[in-house]
Amino acid sequence: MAGFVTDMGGNIVEAEQHTDTHDGMFFQRVEFTTDAVTVADDELGGCFAPVAERFAMDAQLRFTEWRPRTAILVSKPPHCLADLLARAHTGELDIDVGQVIANQPDNESLARVFGVPFHHMPVEDGDRAAQEAAVDERLAADGTELVVLARYMLILSPWFVDRWAGRLINIHHSFLPAFVGASPYRQAHDRGVKVIGATAHYVTAGLDEGPIIEQDVTRVSHRDDVATLTRRGRDLEVIVLARALRAHLSHRILVWGNRTIVFGS
Amino acid sequence: MAGFVTDMGGNIVEAEQHTDTHDGMFFQRVEFTTDAVTVADDELGGCFAPVAERFAMDAQLRFTEWRPRTAILVSKPPHCLADLLARAHTGELDIDVGQVIANQPDNESLARVFGVPFHHMPVEDGDRAAQEAAVDERLAADGTELVVLARYMLILSPWFVDRWAGRLINIHHSFLPAFVGASPYRQAHDRGVKVIGATAHYVTAGLDEGPIIEQDVTRVSHRDDVATLTRRGRDLEVIVLARALRAHLSHRILVWGNRTIVFGS
Amino acid sequence: MAGFVTDMGGNIVEAEQHTDTHDGMFFQRVEFTTDAVTVADDELGGCFAPVAERFAMDAQLRFTEWRPRTAILVSKPPHCLADLLARAHTGELDIDVGQVIANQPDNESLARVFGVPFHHMPVEDGDRAAQEAAVDERLAADGTELVVLARYMLILSPWFVDRWAGRLINIHHSFLPAFVGASPYRQAHDRGVKVIGATAHYVTAGLDEGPIIEQDVTRVSHRDDVATLTRRGRDLEVIVLARALRAHLSHRILVWGNRTIVFGS
Amino acid sequence: MAGFVTDMGGNIVEAEQHTDTHDGMFFQRVEFTTDAVTVADDELGGCFAPVAERFAMDAQLRFTEWRPRTAILVSKPPHCLADLLARAHTGELDIDVGQVIANQPDNESLARVFGVPFHHMPVEDGDRAAQEAAVDERLAADGTELVVLARYMLILSPWFVDRWAGRLINIHHSFLPAFVGASPYRQAHDRGVKVIGATAHYVTAGLDEGPIIEQDVTRVSHRDDVATLTRRGRDLEVIVLARALRAHLSHRILVWGNRTIVFGS
Repeated sequence: MAGFVTDMGGNIVEAEQHTDTHDGMFFQRVEFTTDAVTVADDELGGCFAPVAERFAMDAQLRFTEWRPRTAILVSKPPHCLADLLARAHTGELDIDVGQVIANQPDNESLARVFGVPFHHMPVEDGDRAAQEAAVDERLAADGTELVVLARYMLILSPWFVDRWAGRLINIHHSFLPAFVGASPYRQAHDRGVKVIGATAHYVTAGLDEGPIIEQDVTRVSHRDDVATLTRRGRDLEVIVLARALRAHLSHRILVWGNRTIVFGS
Repeated sequence: MAGFVTDMGGNIVEAEQHTDTHDGMFFQRVEFTTDAVTVADDELGGCFAPVAERFAMDAQLRFTEWRPRTAILVSKPPHCLADLLARAHTGELDIDVGQVIANQPDNESLARVFGVPFHHMPVEDGDRAAQEAAVDERLAADGTELVVLARYMLILSPWFVDRWAGRLINIHHSFLPAFVGASPYRQAHDRGVKVIGATAHYVTAGLDEGPIIEQDVTRVSHRDDVATLTRRGRDLEVIVLARALRAHLSHRILVWGNRTIVFGS
Repeated sequence: MAGFVTDMGGNIVEAEQHTDTHDGMFFQRVEFTTDAVTVADDELGGCFAPVAERFAMDAQLRFTEWRPRTAILVSKPPHCLADLLARAHTGELDIDVGQVIANQPDNESLARVFGVPFHHMPVEDGDRAAQEAAVDERLAADGTELVVLARYMLILSPWFVDRWAGRLINIHHSFLPAFVGASPYRQAHDRGVKVIGATAHYVTAGLDEGPIIEQDVTRVSHRDDVATLTRRGRDLEVIVLARALRAHLSHRILVWGNRTIVFGS
Repeated sequence: MAGFVTDMGGNIVEAEQHTDTHDGMFFQRVEFTTDAVTVADDELGGCFAPVAERFAMDAQLRFTEWRPRTAILVSKPPHCLADLLARAHTGELDIDVGQVIANQPDNESLARVFGVPFHHMPVEDGDRAAQEAAVDERLAADGTELVVLARYMLILSPWFVDRWAGRLINIHHSFLPAFVGASPYRQAHDRGVKVIGATAHYVTAGLDEGPIIEQDVTRVSHRDDVATLTRRGRDLEVIVLARALRAHLSHRILVWGNRTIVFGS
């Protein structure tokens, strides 16, 4: 890998590898400059193909300037949406938010504040399939490259999840695998746990079962009722989602089975 | 309560209360000096009975000099046992360790180092009931007031758990309710979590379902294989168990349903 | 206290106390409903005066519906400002942001997004005193009740600090008392620490020496250069400042000497 | 490096590198098997010399089976000593504890429990120099390879520190650089911090200024007086010291200026 980069005129900025001895796999991320690389960006992948073949590598080439067209899906709670929009506005997160899609009307003014189109797309007459198809269409129409479920409370169908696989990130308000599904803070309270958490993960067909990107927790006590857990958890959700997105945006995540390698973490 | 203490000649050292608005319950812990109290220690409870009755309180009187006769049950891993014996030796934990009971022979020398009797009580011919009955007998014979499961890998029968209810504390090597049962570090690795944890709880009939006393977690990454998780988890287990015991020993824990109020936390 | 509340027709919602045995002080916070209280809000304090006098209490009466007129002072970094404005917008923080005052022009568009007046008040010709006097005047003119230094990089004069004492909250980007003053992330990197932190505190005349309201930290490693520390620290600063403000807004903080009692924490 | 290992018949088990772009330095740790290496262990370094020279590397060769002869220096508090002895006993820490040296008599029985020689070496007639020289002599006589200051409260002279440079590890009971010197928990209480910490570091001539190996913290509140901070801090000290020693024992630490690179962390 190092030889290839040097030969092309690149300069390695950062390199990290990981060996999974259990599965006998080797993972590597190499970031290099392309200023002095003479071949065109879109030819670089082709140049690497022989190297990848020689070592039976599964290789991907990505560019660091990437600023993906992003859609944020949300229900009622505004905190993750507000945080993402603020981070996108200040440049803290390098995403181009094309639209906010919501099955509830509540967050319209928040999206408008940041000048982002807001589409209220409720489930009508209980027809979830129709709503989902409409959402999918709208995502496609906007050239969406990344979908963030920022407290979107509808469960997505397998076909939808497959179509957006690897580009669909959810924030769940518990330290998974504890408290899958609805009302995790209520579940946490009833179980009497002394820590609560949040988990950002790629969405797969199994509910809250996709590869975990990032988790964090905070201590709680018997003094914290469900409302307090919910309020304290909001800060966790926001931070965990932002960290996960940052790792995704800088191409630091490799998914292997149901696990992630997050380089630089 | 304050009036009663003053009337008896006591002086409140520490008082904490907790209101559970959801269940409409009020919990209180009042710690007071008895130097100037004129009635005998064993009459104090009787003096309080009318007050308790008047306010329909469920009241318990405990003394702070308590140093319970303790049995430690263990299987192979030595770290929790070693830590408890060291803390008992230095006075950090106020327990009088009467015996170590193990279903495996490994930790005999460790117990001997600290001059504590070690009883190897394996399950023979698969007869768990017999072993459990023998353990129970030995506990009773030693005047045991507290049983600590310091990585004891046998599941206890409901009758045993009932008999030692409120006096039986377990350390489980996961942040419950995640990863109940065997090999939680293996489970954690396979799920790809980014934090691991440990949980100390009172044992009840449901496996790993008793009231949680204390939990803590530590961050992990893709670099940590099962062996590393296990090693890093050991420090967590030790600390979480010690904190839980300290709270129990200082009568700071009230159990309410499947939850604990831990005063001073 | 309980007697007084009951006599007035109030109902205690939450009560917490703290005894500082070292200083021989007793601190208490009692929150009660006033729906059934018959005297007017502004007469309630007067009714309590005899009780306070009898027990030589230093007492303050505050109302929970408080939504203080707030000014945010900022220099270049936008993250704390963005977060506060977003939280104020969603109602997560109960503040009425009257204006943003900045000695740098950078955050004008951010304030405008949220419809908050932005005043660029740079130090001109090195005349800090003049700038400070102008800021003070503008704060007063707006009926300001709370001033938040959301990464405001100018040191304030003692007279200014005195005038806004108890109403002036700063976020400092280190775990104080480590790394007082400028460039704490640079200082942290040079010292080679393995954790970085953030501290929210009331401002007093001594630089970064006021009573600490809230602190938190995050682990770092040799891999984190100053830029990475700075980026990771931003999330800490935001959360720590928000938690401190929440405690202040709900009247949970008592200042005693250079320390704070934060009830409910 | 990889080429050299392969040529010698070794197999790389683990490799990690770190680039310090600020200082223009490259650091690398490569762990490899030597089963199939044909040259003798003590010739391996010589074989590598030409490679090191060619790339102007500063290289060190260490063996993983290392179990250094260790001396533990301690004053009164027993918790770190007890923990180290227990970990050495169970094999959790791969050290061969040759002796415990103490300027106070308190911990003699604890050392005896584990069968480790205990030398009470107090400062007599205020002659610190004499005591220090005697300690040094005793360390040398025992073939000491590692000295652990497990709450040893005497400040060591520069000559002593120089002599044991890189082999002298201290646990300090604060998150350095905060609260250097005596009574850090008292200092922490007086400053009103909301987190306390512990720091393990290599000892250098400047008091508490050596390269930090490991730090950790725990949250505290106004409820914690100095005694409680001290008790809660003990668990931190024990864990932080153990983690630092583990990194040292597995040759994972490189010191660069006043900072450490801790591979695998």
